[in-house]
Amino acid sequence: MESKVLGVLGGGQLGRMLVEEANRLNIKTVILDADNSPAKQISNSTEHIIGSFKNSEDIELLASKCDVLTIEIEHVDVSTLEKVAAKYPNLQIHPSPKTIGLIKDKYLQKLHLINHGIKVAESLEIKENTNEALAAVGQEFSYPFLLKSRTEAYDGRGNFVVHNSTEIDEALKFLNNRPLYAEKFAPFVKELAVMIIKEQNGSVKSFPVVETIHNENICHTCFAPARVSQKEIDSAKELALQTVSAFPGCGIFGVEMFLLADGQVLINEIAPRPHNSGHYTIDACVVSQFEAHLRAVMGLPIPELGFVTGNTAAIMLNVLGDNNVAGKELEQCAKTLEIEGGSVYLYGKESKPKRKLGHINIVSDSMASCENKLRYITGETENVSSVAEVGVIMGSDSDLPVMKAACEILTKFNVPFEVTIVSAHRTPQRMFEYAKSAHRRGLKAIIAGAGGAAHLPGMVAAMTVLPVIGVPVKGSVLDGVDSMHSILQMPRGIPVATVAINNSTNAGLLAIRMLGGDYLGQMEKFLEAQEEEVLVKAEKLESIGYEEYLSEMKK
Amino acid sequence: MESKVLGVLGGGQLGRMLVEEANRLNIKTVILDADNSPAKQISNSTEHIIGSFKNSEDIELLASKCDVLTIEIEHVDVSTLEKVAAKYPNLQIHPSPKTIGLIKDKYLQKLHLINHGIKVAESLEIKENTNEALAAVGQEFSYPFLLKSRTEAYDGRGNFVVHNSTEIDEALKFLNNRPLYAEKFAPFVKELAVMIIKEQNGSVKSFPVVETIHNENICHTCFAPARVSQKEIDSAKELALQTVSAFPGCGIFGVEMFLLADGQVLINEIAPRPHNSGHYTIDACVVSQFEAHLRAVMGLPIPELGFVTGNTAAIMLNVLGDNNVAGKELEQCAKTLEIEGGSVYLYGKESKPKRKLGHINIVSDSMASCENKLRYITGETENVSSVAEVGVIMGSDSDLPVMKAACEILTKFNVPFEVTIVSAHRTPQRMFEYAKSAHRRGLKAIIAGAGGAAHLPGMVAAMTVLPVIGVPVKGSVLDGVDSMHSILQMPRGIPVATVAINNSTNAGLLAIRMLGGDYLGQMEKFLEAQEEEVLVKAEKLESIGYEEYLSEMKK
Repeated sequence: MESKVLGVLGGGQLGRMLVEEANRLNIKTVILDADNSPAKQISNSTEHIIGSFKNSEDIELLASKCDVLTIEIEHVDVSTLEKVAAKYPNLQIHPSPKTIGLIKDKYLQKLHLINHGIKVAESLEIKENTNEALAAVGQEFSYPFLLKSRTEAYDGRGNFVVHNSTEIDEALKFLNNRPLYAEKFAPFVKELAVMIIKEQNGSVKSFPVVETIHNENICHTCFAPARVSQKEIDSAKELALQTVSAFPGCGIFGVEMFLLADGQVLINEIAPRPHNSGHYTIDACVVSQFEAHLRAVMGLPIPELGFVTGNTAAIMLNVLGDNNVAGKELEQCAKTLEIEGGSVYLYGKESKPKRKLGHINIVSDSMASCENKLRYITGETENVSSVAEVGVIMGSDSDLPVMKAACEILTKFNVPFEVTIVSAHRTPQRMFEYAKSAHRRGLKAIIAGAGGAAHLPGMVAAMTVLPVIGVPVKGSVLDGVDSMHSILQMPRGIPVATVAINNSTNAGLLAIRMLGGDYLGQMEKFLEAQEEEVLVKAEKLESIGYEEYLSEMKK
Repeated sequence: MESKVLGVLGGGQLGRMLVEEANRLNIKTVILDADNSPAKQISNSTEHIIGSFKNSEDIELLASKCDVLTIEIEHVDVSTLEKVAAKYPNLQIHPSPKTIGLIKDKYLQKLHLINHGIKVAESLEIKENTNEALAAVGQEFSYPFLLKSRTEAYDGRGNFVVHNSTEIDEALKFLNNRPLYAEKFAPFVKELAVMIIKEQNGSVKSFPVVETIHNENICHTCFAPARVSQKEIDSAKELALQTVSAFPGCGIFGVEMFLLADGQVLINEIAPRPHNSGHYTIDACVVSQFEAHLRAVMGLPIPELGFVTGNTAAIMLNVLGDNNVAGKELEQCAKTLEIEGGSVYLYGKESKPKRKLGHINIVSDSMASCENKLRYITGETENVSSVAEVGVIMGSDSDLPVMKAACEILTKFNVPFEVTIVSAHRTPQRMFEYAKSAHRRGLKAIIAGAGGAAHLPGMVAAMTVLPVIGVPVKGSVLDGVDSMHSILQMPRGIPVATVAINNSTNAGLLAIRMLGGDYLGQMEKFLEAQEEEVLVKAEKLESIGYEEYLSEMKK
């Protein structure tokens, strides 16, 4: 694909997954790291360099063998990178050494962001690692605040939460002699992250915005897309794009953010490389974060990035070395292999407590379904329960004899569904909650039956983004015309898909057509069977004549 | 994941993609093939064996190093496999040597299938490679018939189509001295294929059924799912499952079939290993054919297999060495990188005419969209045109002023759509064609507006599996109630999602809710904006009072 040779500083799991993509494109890689490091395990080249990405001589040797240099970790020797850039004018280094230098010192990173008008958590430089300096921070920021190492901080190594002044000593001891800065605690409701790719022409493109959950400062789980409002997703994406635009050079950037209670988004920190929060892309996107990075640094085209299909959802779970029994962490991996849409990635590393040894991806067509699978993997449940795709609701149990036909159709088509009573007038709060939570719970369509004033379908439609199918149920007076008008004549802005009076069969069939995908194959066969049924009757009528046919019908 | 060592006979591209999956699960592989063969390139183990999977000593050496043996090609030395199986009672060999032996001789394969009652194309053994023997076949099967090598036949090497008796000499020369059999030409309308996985407990599971297109007997393109009826897909899947069940041992099997004009499916041939027709699974499924094979032979669990989501579609295009200019085949790869959902896999092989050097996967949420992308890659079109997801149709241009609002909503939400006139009564044939082709063309919902008798929505719904939204258009008499009843009161079996009279805004909004996925985020923001609009009015009314508000409204 590309005859240029790519040198990679660092051969850990990020380098490994990058090399995997390079292998697929026949791009030759040379890796600088310890012997048999994870990335080297999957490349039989004899050119790899045994050494350290912090060692000047090793970096110079790597540079002499490559056309393009990139990193899988930012803790590299930047001055050497600048030196080799000067020495080899044709050598490309992505991301640019300047960017790596700015980002690897988290306090410089923060100042750079502030200078570019990017919203970040308030920070203070710690000039001397003393009790007094920290007490002054506590005075200014109040407690808790975060004490962070400016450099070499990752996977929880380098961060300390100072809850009150009595913890200052412990904090100083934990971050012993490291260059520090303090960060005001951002009272976030969620942590968001997004992978941004910057091309050589400077244009930036975004992967989906995700939600990360950290345990003891180590990324633990990642939900893609983030389970927040679309507005919040849009804000986060915009901020991340703006952030990455503020740095020179190209490549992929992991942008971590805080979402505050008021919907505001702040930058937490960024990484100028593939990132743990982007591992879901391996299965949930056609072009993974690693392939995107590879394309960017090699100058290959990058199209729009996103999920495999519009309704793809994914969860990534890190496989961390068990604290007590080496290898015990593989139990979750074994369970993952049992579930549809589960995939395991191990990095060829020895098991040590809390070490990132691999990750698990769960992919499905709704987040609710991914969450059920996650619960199984983590042992919270013993089975993967299926997620209802259609909700059948009715204003009163007296509607059930009519709504039964919809349930029968859904059963016939093997659609997971739920059925319950939700009355607009007698249980308005329940209706509100049902409608508001429907999408989040994994439903894809709602069938609502109602008689009389029949407000249920329209009111539910007003509070969900899902398509709502209304079934007018015939009452003892007015033949259901009252309900039909009430369900059908919705104002502009809120649609209800109305079917014929009492015809919940068609409501079920309509829901299945809406679900689309695989169900449409079944619908094709249903229509054929229906046609066949009429043809059989026609043949009989033709063969026995209308009189006998009629007399048989009367039996 | 698994401490057992897997030996692989053959290190070509199939072995390479298998090793990629083994790397991900930390499963150690030992490959037997030439030095630096594709599979060896992506594994730095020093245990690999330089040799041939046809050489007895090499196979014995491999067996001594492994716990499980598998193959990436069936042309291996079966008798040695049987010998090592006897020598190492704990060694597992998958698929079983017996199955490999039965399948590698295509005529024995055929007899085995016939013995198990599987439908195959009629075949005759050629006992002597003479002109007379072939003339006798021509007599029995009539022309054209296929002359095939019983062994060592793949990628077009080993097949000859004998169109008439004058070609017999050429056929014998082409298949010089090889053991032959003749096959009656199956007048197929399509070629289908499916990957079947057989677990160690004997249970069989199926990947989706695909359609393959061969050029000069080499697999060229693969469409997943197959573009045939659901009934045909079901028949093919059932036949393939039955076929694989007839062979002992476990692992993945590629099953190639002929679909005849009457809907009948025949087995063409099978391969006891990963197969070219399954390469689409790398991107379109979470568990690829390679991972599935690996799990089967290592005794790991295998869940239900399928696409990433229900509406995933894919096309695989082989990258074959250009006939004239080595490397020219990479031009299609370069174009692939430009498109969303395109992915390139190169096998680390030297370019030679017609050699399989790699493959391209295209993944999208409809086959129509994949096809547009394929046309761009192959140079048939200069741009990737977007596929309409919603069709807006109306019985007459007089309905356009009403239907315009639906178009405006679709435009506002950036939904690709098409709009045209289809009259049930004046253009019944056009309506038939429109409805019948809608799903295949990539539409996911149809909005049909009609006035008066208003048969269009219901008639279209009767001829498509897609959801149809009906908009009753108000005529000069009866206020649209006539159309409303005609559209709404559909018989059981064929649903139409009816909206309020003249309210095509809601038809557009309903279509968007049906499309789901990413569009629901936009719908969320639309509902918020709508709410905000009313709140602004409420605030104004509260602040200026109802009288001034009314007088302003009159302006």
